[in-house]
Amino acid sequence: MAEKITSREADYSQWYIDLVRSAKLADYSDVRGCMIIRPNGYAIWEKMQAALDRMFKETGHVNAYFPLFIPESFIQKEADHIEGFAPECAVVTHGGGEKLQENLFVRPTSETIIWSSYKKWIQSYRDLPLLINQWANVVRWEMRTRLFLRTTEFLWQEGHTAHATRAEAHEEVMRMINVYKTFAEEYMALPVIMGRKSESEKFAGAEETWCIEAMMQDKKALQAGTSHNLGQNFAKAFDCRFQSKDGELEYVWATSWGVSTRLIGALIMAHSDDKGLVLPPKLATRQVVVIPILRGDKEMVVEHAQNVVDSLTADGISAFMDAGEQNSPGWKFAEYELQGIPLRIELGPRDIDKGVCIVARRDNGEKTTLNLGASLPGELQKLLDTMQKAMYAKALDFRNTNTFEVADFGEFREKIDHGFLVAHWDGTPETEEKIKEETKATIRVLPEDQDLVDRFDMLTPGTCIYSGKPSLRKVIFAKAY
Amino acid sequence: MAEKITSREADYSQWYIDLVRSAKLADYSDVRGCMIIRPNGYAIWEKMQAALDRMFKETGHVNAYFPLFIPESFIQKEADHIEGFAPECAVVTHGGGEKLQENLFVRPTSETIIWSSYKKWIQSYRDLPLLINQWANVVRWEMRTRLFLRTTEFLWQEGHTAHATRAEAHEEVMRMINVYKTFAEEYMALPVIMGRKSESEKFAGAEETWCIEAMMQDKKALQAGTSHNLGQNFAKAFDCRFQSKDGELEYVWATSWGVSTRLIGALIMAHSDDKGLVLPPKLATRQVVVIPILRGDKEMVVEHAQNVVDSLTADGISAFMDAGEQNSPGWKFAEYELQGIPLRIELGPRDIDKGVCIVARRDNGEKTTLNLGASLPGELQKLLDTMQKAMYAKALDFRNTNTFEVADFGEFREKIDHGFLVAHWDGTPETEEKIKEETKATIRVLPEDQDLVDRFDMLTPGTCIYSGKPSLRKVIFAKAY
Repeated sequence: MAEKITSREADYSQWYIDLVRSAKLADYSDVRGCMIIRPNGYAIWEKMQAALDRMFKETGHVNAYFPLFIPESFIQKEADHIEGFAPECAVVTHGGGEKLQENLFVRPTSETIIWSSYKKWIQSYRDLPLLINQWANVVRWEMRTRLFLRTTEFLWQEGHTAHATRAEAHEEVMRMINVYKTFAEEYMALPVIMGRKSESEKFAGAEETWCIEAMMQDKKALQAGTSHNLGQNFAKAFDCRFQSKDGELEYVWATSWGVSTRLIGALIMAHSDDKGLVLPPKLATRQVVVIPILRGDKEMVVEHAQNVVDSLTADGISAFMDAGEQNSPGWKFAEYELQGIPLRIELGPRDIDKGVCIVARRDNGEKTTLNLGASLPGELQKLLDTMQKAMYAKALDFRNTNTFEVADFGEFREKIDHGFLVAHWDGTPETEEKIKEETKATIRVLPEDQDLVDRFDMLTPGTCIYSGKPSLRKVIFAKAY
Repeated sequence: MAEKITSREADYSQWYIDLVRSAKLADYSDVRGCMIIRPNGYAIWEKMQAALDRMFKETGHVNAYFPLFIPESFIQKEADHIEGFAPECAVVTHGGGEKLQENLFVRPTSETIIWSSYKKWIQSYRDLPLLINQWANVVRWEMRTRLFLRTTEFLWQEGHTAHATRAEAHEEVMRMINVYKTFAEEYMALPVIMGRKSESEKFAGAEETWCIEAMMQDKKALQAGTSHNLGQNFAKAFDCRFQSKDGELEYVWATSWGVSTRLIGALIMAHSDDKGLVLPPKLATRQVVVIPILRGDKEMVVEHAQNVVDSLTADGISAFMDAGEQNSPGWKFAEYELQGIPLRIELGPRDIDKGVCIVARRDNGEKTTLNLGASLPGELQKLLDTMQKAMYAKALDFRNTNTFEVADFGEFREKIDHGFLVAHWDGTPETEEKIKEETKATIRVLPEDQDLVDRFDMLTPGTCIYSGKPSLRKVIFAKAY
């Protein structure tokens, strides 16, 4: 068993680190800012990858792989892009024992290396759209790192698409941010607010960045995914033109979109508790642990427990047994709570006599008595579904309870540590910057979710809470990871 | 449609490059020696990954992820390892705009960074075995590159395991080389010879390297996978000890094993022909293309073709239709032959009248008439299975036909361009080196496959074909990729 986890109340940051380490999800490596994703953490990433990859393919995308290295001259071709990324790059200056003629940047993102290929692949409107995704590692030299949330190297997927018109590119941007929203809500049980970023917060090189933002248990915001409309910026930087149906030579329209191993951090921070990890059933590699209570005829108990595992496995539920005698049932309960196994089945000789077993839910500790036999897999599947939905409902309720509309900057200052603040903003980067300087809060998103827009009457003009100038709409401010 | 492919007979190397480019499998990037794996090529890698990953998990392994960067001092901890790998490393000297205090090597392989973690994770025999695999990119600064076969950056998996005894480590080495052999033979339809490498050819830092070697259509050898017994070399380099059951402090025993995107090159070189790619059905993302012959009532023909696609899809066969009118059936036949779709179904109005369709196999061009209706998916599955086996049998026959035993060095010189040569060798690196200098042939493998050992009476001592000194066994020489 692992060392004790600090409680969330005592120290939320320490709780997070303790949990990630105790549950063996990740650890810092001996390389500055780089993490090791341990098997328990990587298993979550594999489940995320499988679901996302399927959703990408269902929306017409294919996977490819582009080089890790980007020539310095490529990064420099798009002005905003170089300004945003060059300072945080790792640079290869030597290879094969010799100094390189041109430095190579380890990719911080792949727009430039990919558009230098698209230029070769795209000649005509018949070559469009090009809908490619890549699963890869990227490197951004971070000063302050935090496991999963911000590390020098991380894993992600980056979609890079090419289109014949601005409208098609916009459609793609929206399609993918909605794929992310669906994934976050249905798989991660994580409610997210979808909308645009302000100019200051958008991607370096994009015309528009769309995002999904989630609330963590400390009421801070976490950006969980982004989808960028790159306009013709990269096509112009790499001179990528195509012959349109009308025979005109036009620049190609681009999008890019990505989510990363940061999502694992979001998952932990949104749902887990002082006992350890709480995993939504859809992202749990192991969904049910069966713990035989070894009293009386031990062999008989283990045999029944094995039968339960077998019947669940046959029904597509991922189950395993811990029949080890060196640890007590209590130790096992704690260990699998730490690991976030969604359901625990306790099975002792008296339960077997009665033809029942006790099932405990990881999210709320609720215990249910279920009959052994043919109906058990179906009942457990129902419990898993219920738990998945309950986790989402709980997180949504938490976010709603901690989202406040504020009318003036005094109220803003008072409430900024207590959640998401809905407020009018005059639309200028200057006001945004001043609010950030004074409160550390940033504009997280200009929401487009209809329910939220309606609830807070977001699109009716008003007065900026900071400058008193006219405001076209309300936005969401929060402190963020 | 793509440009014409050079024939294998005219120029085998050019044929390979033409094929890889025409079938849009991969392309060189603007970064020296780095390739772009295009969607058609990456789809093969995804099929390979899925099968291998399943086999790794079935043998008890889990996935994790370790950092891309390795501090220079780590690489230097194992003497043979640094000698083998340092000269071909890419080196990061700057990060975040500043010169680094210690250079970081981009991983050429991950033993050192992984064993620096294992040292922290392993205290007792209870922590063993540790059975971890990683899917990752690696970089080796290659002077001469060839798409898939030898590139500066490539994708691979690397297993790194830790064991309590030498015997357990050896068992793991053998288990994994056999997993690779099974994968090569059953999925890639590629016969391989399993055995040990000579001292000169083994992995830098290993006690023993086991490998699988395959023959390409130009009769050259290609190393398709390796499994290394690392002894206690890395445990000693990183001072990784564990408390044994007897309470003794002992060094941990290690293995590592890997296959890479090189396998895609092997697959192409072993099976493909002058028309393009030939893919074994088990590694084809798209197994059947249905081409409606658009004469007479076109809508009716397309509807029937769509029914065929639907019935195959429902049965788990991956099928698609090309009903486009801009290209002729002949153009489509050529295009999907180039792409290596295993089966092609031709369906015209007269076929529909007769209730049949024509099925063409990609590997040998054989055409079969099959009845439309409920029996079709089953019949096609049979054809796919038959094709998978036929491809293996053909490749095995080719290898057997081109494997010769040679009795002296004169015969060796004569036949070395014609296949694998079975010959006695005195076991010294000096003789190995001289043969290499004079003929460019290397010892590919000291075979352990029983059938091959028996066929050539490999383990009976004799006389070295080069030095005339005593030889303990026969080995296999060949020119290699």
